[in-house]
Amino acid sequence: MIQVAIMGHGVVGCGVAELLQHNAAVIAGKAGEELKIAKILDLRDFPELPYAELFTHRFEDIVENPEIQIVVETMGGLHPAYDYVKACLDAGKSVVTSNKELVAQKGDELLALAKAHKQNFLFEASVGGGIPILRPLDQCLSANRIQRIAGILNGTTNFMLTEMIENGLSFDEALADAQNRGYAERDPSADVDGLDACRKICILASLAFGNHVYPDEVHTEGIRDITLTDVRCAEAAGGVIKLIGLAAREDEHIRTLVAPMVVKKDNMLSHIGGVFNGVLVTGDAVGDTLFYGRGAGKEPTASAVVADVIDAAKHLGRSKYLHWDKHIPGLVADYQALPMAYMVRLAGETREAAAAAATAAYEDITPISADIADNEFVCITPELSESDFEDKTALLKGVTLVSRIRLL
Amino acid sequence: MIQVAIMGHGVVGCGVAELLQHNAAVIAGKAGEELKIAKILDLRDFPELPYAELFTHRFEDIVENPEIQIVVETMGGLHPAYDYVKACLDAGKSVVTSNKELVAQKGDELLALAKAHKQNFLFEASVGGGIPILRPLDQCLSANRIQRIAGILNGTTNFMLTEMIENGLSFDEALADAQNRGYAERDPSADVDGLDACRKICILASLAFGNHVYPDEVHTEGIRDITLTDVRCAEAAGGVIKLIGLAAREDEHIRTLVAPMVVKKDNMLSHIGGVFNGVLVTGDAVGDTLFYGRGAGKEPTASAVVADVIDAAKHLGRSKYLHWDKHIPGLVADYQALPMAYMVRLAGETREAAAAAATAAYEDITPISADIADNEFVCITPELSESDFEDKTALLKGVTLVSRIRLL
Repeated sequence: MIQVAIMGHGVVGCGVAELLQHNAAVIAGKAGEELKIAKILDLRDFPELPYAELFTHRFEDIVENPEIQIVVETMGGLHPAYDYVKACLDAGKSVVTSNKELVAQKGDELLALAKAHKQNFLFEASVGGGIPILRPLDQCLSANRIQRIAGILNGTTNFMLTEMIENGLSFDEALADAQNRGYAERDPSADVDGLDACRKICILASLAFGNHVYPDEVHTEGIRDITLTDVRCAEAAGGVIKLIGLAAREDEHIRTLVAPMVVKKDNMLSHIGGVFNGVLVTGDAVGDTLFYGRGAGKEPTASAVVADVIDAAKHLGRSKYLHWDKHIPGLVADYQALPMAYMVRLAGETREAAAAAATAAYEDITPISADIADNEFVCITPELSESDFEDKTALLKGVTLVSRIRLL
Repeated sequence: MIQVAIMGHGVVGCGVAELLQHNAAVIAGKAGEELKIAKILDLRDFPELPYAELFTHRFEDIVENPEIQIVVETMGGLHPAYDYVKACLDAGKSVVTSNKELVAQKGDELLALAKAHKQNFLFEASVGGGIPILRPLDQCLSANRIQRIAGILNGTTNFMLTEMIENGLSFDEALADAQNRGYAERDPSADVDGLDACRKICILASLAFGNHVYPDEVHTEGIRDITLTDVRCAEAAGGVIKLIGLAAREDEHIRTLVAPMVVKKDNMLSHIGGVFNGVLVTGDAVGDTLFYGRGAGKEPTASAVVADVIDAAKHLGRSKYLHWDKHIPGLVADYQALPMAYMVRLAGETREAAAAAATAAYEDITPISADIADNEFVCITPELSESDFEDKTALLKGVTLVSRIRLL
C-alpha cells in the first residue's frame, strides 16, 4: 500500500480524492499496489464528507510523515505551492501537480530537484486537463525531433469564440455567458488575455525542445479585440478564429507566441469547439498528430492527476525521464521572424480605394468576399515576417488598418 | 550502449534502421544510452546500403547473441514472426513489433512470456501507425474505466471513402486510385473487407478492457457495398461514411464490431480524411479524447517502433505494466444487442409508398432529403438492437431494402 497526500481540496483536489476512492480497484490494478489517501491539506474543514477525518491544516503533517510517498499539489498559484512542493521533493517524496503557473515558472528547478532525489515531479494535468499530451510528447514521440506545436490550450476562450462563431454572440455576450456557466472567472484576464495559454505553451515548448521557456519570453495577445466582423471574415476565408499557442523550432532557436489566428477548415484544430482543447504536434518522423479532449473540469483534470499518481507509484525511487534542462538565454528567438500570412481588414474612402492600397502595400493578396462595411476591404496577405508586415502596413496610404489577424 | 536487432527489412524495418541512425542523438538522449543496430535479419542482401554489413540470413545470429537485448520484429504475418518473437522472449530479450496480426492472435501469450522473463513486449506501432494510442490508453487514462473506443483504424479505406465523399469517385475508381498510389495491395481484401481494422480494434479492446479479444469474435463488415448514393444520403443526413472499429463496455461484457457507419459532423472522427487514422476513447472520468495522425507509412510507423525501443531500453530487466490477461470465453457478448440507429434506403412503387412502409415498420423515423431515385426513400431509424432492426425490417411490405448503414 502506498500513502498519498493531497494539498488543496478545491475543484481538482476534490476530484482527485473522489476518483482515487471511486476507481480504487482499477487504479490498484494499474499501480500494482493499493493507493490510500493519508492526509488532505486545506485551510477549511469539510465535516460533511465521508473522508472528513483525513483533513489537516498543518503542512507538517504531510512533509514530516515518512509514510507519505506521493504528494498531490492542487492548490494553484505560485506561493505557497512552490515552497510546499520544494519541501516535499527535498523530503524525498514524489510530487504530482496540476498547477500550470508553478510548472511554467519553476519547472526546470523542480525537475532537477526530483531527479537529484531519485523521485518524480509529474504534471500531465497542467496542460490540456485530461488530455494525454505531455507523456505522449515525451515518450511516444521520443524518436522524433519535434518541429512545431500548435494548440488550442484554453477552454474558456475556445468556448467564447465558439459562441461568437456559431451563435453570433459578441465578445461581451460570450464572456457573460462563459461567466454564467462558471467557465470564466469574474476577472477573466488570465483566460481572455492569453496568460493561461501562454503558461501551457511554455510547458509544451520546454518539454518538446528540452530547455525551460518562461512565460515572459512568449509574445502573448488575447481575444478582447476580436469582433463579430472578424469572425465573419474568417468564415468567408474558409476558416475560424481560434486562440492558438504556437512554438516552432527553427535551426537551434524556438519561436513562440500566443495570439488569435485564423485556422483553415482543413486543419483539425478548426473543428475543436466549446470548452475542448487540442494540441497538434508535428514531428520529423511522425508528421502531424493531434491530441484532443476536455481541457478543464473536475473529472478530466483529476483523471490526469491520478494517472500521474499511478505512474509515480510505479516509479518510486526511480526518476522517470520526463525532464528538461535549465533556461538558456537566447534560445527563444524573436517571434517576429516567423513567416505568417495575415487576414487584414482595411477602411478607405471606398472599397476600391482600400483594395488598391492593399495591393500596393502587400502585393500578392487574396481578396475575401465578406459581409463588411461598404468602404472596407478584407484580404489575406502572403506569408511575411512581422517586421516585413509592419513595414508594408506603414506604406498603406489613405486607409486605416481596422484589424489584422494571423493565419495559422 | 544497448544493442538492437531488426528482423525484416521491408518498408517499416528499413524506416526503423534509418530513424535509429538519423535521429541517433535525440534517441540516445531519451533512452539515456546509445542504441546501436547489431544485426538485421532478412532473406535478401542489400549490398548498396551504407549499413550492408549488418545483414544476416540466420535468425540464430540474433537469438543466440547475448549482447542483443532488444529485438524489433517488422516481418509481418504470423509465421515465422510468432516463432521468432517467442524464441527471443525466451532468450530474455525485449521485443518490439509493428505486427498487428501477431498481437491480435498471440498478444496475451507473448505478454505473459515477456512478464515471466521480466522483459517487455511492446507494439505501439501495431495500431494507428505513428499515433501514440496504446501507451496513452494504458498509462495516461489509467485512472479511468474505459467505456468505449471508436476508431478509424485503416488508412486505405479511409482514403477511398474520402475520395468517394470529396471527389465523387465510385468504390472501384477509389480502389484503383488507392492501388496506384501504393496505399492498397493488389489483393485489397485485408483492408476493404475490414480485417485490418478488426485486428486493431482487438488490440485496443484487449488493452482497454483487460482480457484478450480475438479477431474471430468481432463481427466485421467491409466497405465493398458502399455506393455513391449512400455517400450522398449520409451527407444529406449531416454525416460522412467511415469504416469504424467499435468496442463498448456494457456491464461486464464487451460488445464489438467493425462496419461502415454514418458519422455525424459534430463527431471529430467525421473530420478525419485521407490516409489519416483517429481513435476516440471515452473514459468515465476524462470523457471523450481523440488521438489522430498518420495510421501507416514508413516514417510514422518507424517513429512508433523506435519510441518503443527507447522505452524498452529504459526498462531492461523490468516489465512495464502494458499488459492484458488471457481470453475469457463469453466476455465478448453478442454485438447485435448494441442499440444503434440505422440509415435505411428503401425502394417501393413510389417514394410515398416506401416512406409509408418505413414509418409502419420503424415508427419514429427521421426522413432524409437526398438525391435518390424517384421511387426510393431514405431515413434514420430510432436506436434499435440489431435483432429488433431485423424483426422490423421483416415487416416491411412491398418495398426492398436497398441499403442499411449504422450510425455511430
